[in-house]
Amino acid sequence: MPETQMPTPRTRVIREPHRGVYDRETVHRILDEGFLCHIGFIVDGQPFVIPTSYGRKDANLYIHGSSASRMLRNLKDSVPMCVTVTLLDGLVLARSVFNHSMNYRSVVILGKATLVEDPREKLEALHTLSEHILPGRWNDARQPNERELKQTSVLRLPIEEFSAKVRTGPPIDDEEDYSLPTWAGVVPLELKAGEPIDDSKLDPPREVPVYIRDYTRHA
Amino acid sequence: MPETQMPTPRTRVIREPHRGVYDRETVHRILDEGFLCHIGFIVDGQPFVIPTSYGRKDANLYIHGSSASRMLRNLKDSVPMCVTVTLLDGLVLARSVFNHSMNYRSVVILGKATLVEDPREKLEALHTLSEHILPGRWNDARQPNERELKQTSVLRLPIEEFSAKVRTGPPIDDEEDYSLPTWAGVVPLELKAGEPIDDSKLDPPREVPVYIRDYTRHA
Repeated sequence: MPETQMPTPRTRVIREPHRGVYDRETVHRILDEGFLCHIGFIVDGQPFVIPTSYGRKDANLYIHGSSASRMLRNLKDSVPMCVTVTLLDGLVLARSVFNHSMNYRSVVILGKATLVEDPREKLEALHTLSEHILPGRWNDARQPNERELKQTSVLRLPIEEFSAKVRTGPPIDDEEDYSLPTWAGVVPLELKAGEPIDDSKLDPPREVPVYIRDYTRHA
Repeated sequence: MPETQMPTPRTRVIREPHRGVYDRETVHRILDEGFLCHIGFIVDGQPFVIPTSYGRKDANLYIHGSSASRMLRNLKDSVPMCVTVTLLDGLVLARSVFNHSMNYRSVVILGKATLVEDPREKLEALHTLSEHILPGRWNDARQPNERELKQTSVLRLPIEEFSAKVRTGPPIDDEEDYSLPTWAGVVPLELKAGEPIDDSKLDPPREVPVYIRDYTRHA
């Protein structure tokens, strides 16, 4: 049985309520497909929204950054934050401008983050973050040393208060517009990886590893 | 001469300051290449981050939505907001996990929005939004009628307090890591449009217009 979270008044989808999704399995699937989130937090009454990467392990979201980062210094004090992940799937072109839309899957998580102090959890979180973005990379690269770990902060946000919003499918037009001579349908959008570019300092030249060559991903 | 905005303490890029960009021309170029933004606002002390589309005209950003939308009802009261646009350009794979990065261009705009009341500006803003996402669509589709205009709210955010952050180029490794046998370089990422999907209710079938077939875009 998938766990279904009851939406709180803060996470209930109000506009287009049929697009609201509250089951954890769907939310985890969306989180696992993306790797770029936008984090909202407040400084002196002003909201800020900053993009960063993330990783998920079980019911926790991990983010990381330089210990000197303004965002991380703010968030580690257990202040209210919002993490939003958006996967854009397509442009939905209706016969009327008004009924144009987009196909997307988005997740909003509200909560407070905690600084990960335990060295083992911190290393595991960094491993999760790395493998989340590019599986196979962690073992192929030099792993973090003590100095680097000290320069990195990791935050844990429990995935507890959340909702997703999903739109799929064709345009929905007003009945009387279907006879208009306008093309209608969906233009799918997907984040695609291009041909890997060798670092010019690769000496001797090296083969691009399989886990990079086969990379396809949504962000 | 490009106008260069002095960063305020709130928009100055602190971490990796050499990535901070404050000239309006660069910022407008980034805004014009994307069409998806993440909007941050505060309700009862809780930050929310919601994805939506936008359009730019001169030094104003326009967003729109249902007049019933929680976000728009909140924002029209001239509360502090943040609009962030992120273009993800690639994964930067260094020889050490620590030096991994991403190539990206992001813009952060702080300010307060105003509800567009003037009918001509409102229609122009909707035209801007539509053409921003898919040039050519506005004239090919049925344009908004009075009822639809009433159901739509448009907000104007002046692009006044802003900054951009840009990373480009290859990985930068620690000197002693360059001899490691790890492939390093950049995996370019790009939002690509797939084959347009006809609405099954197209009757008779219609050709996909050229402005859709040739669509390539960043989001």
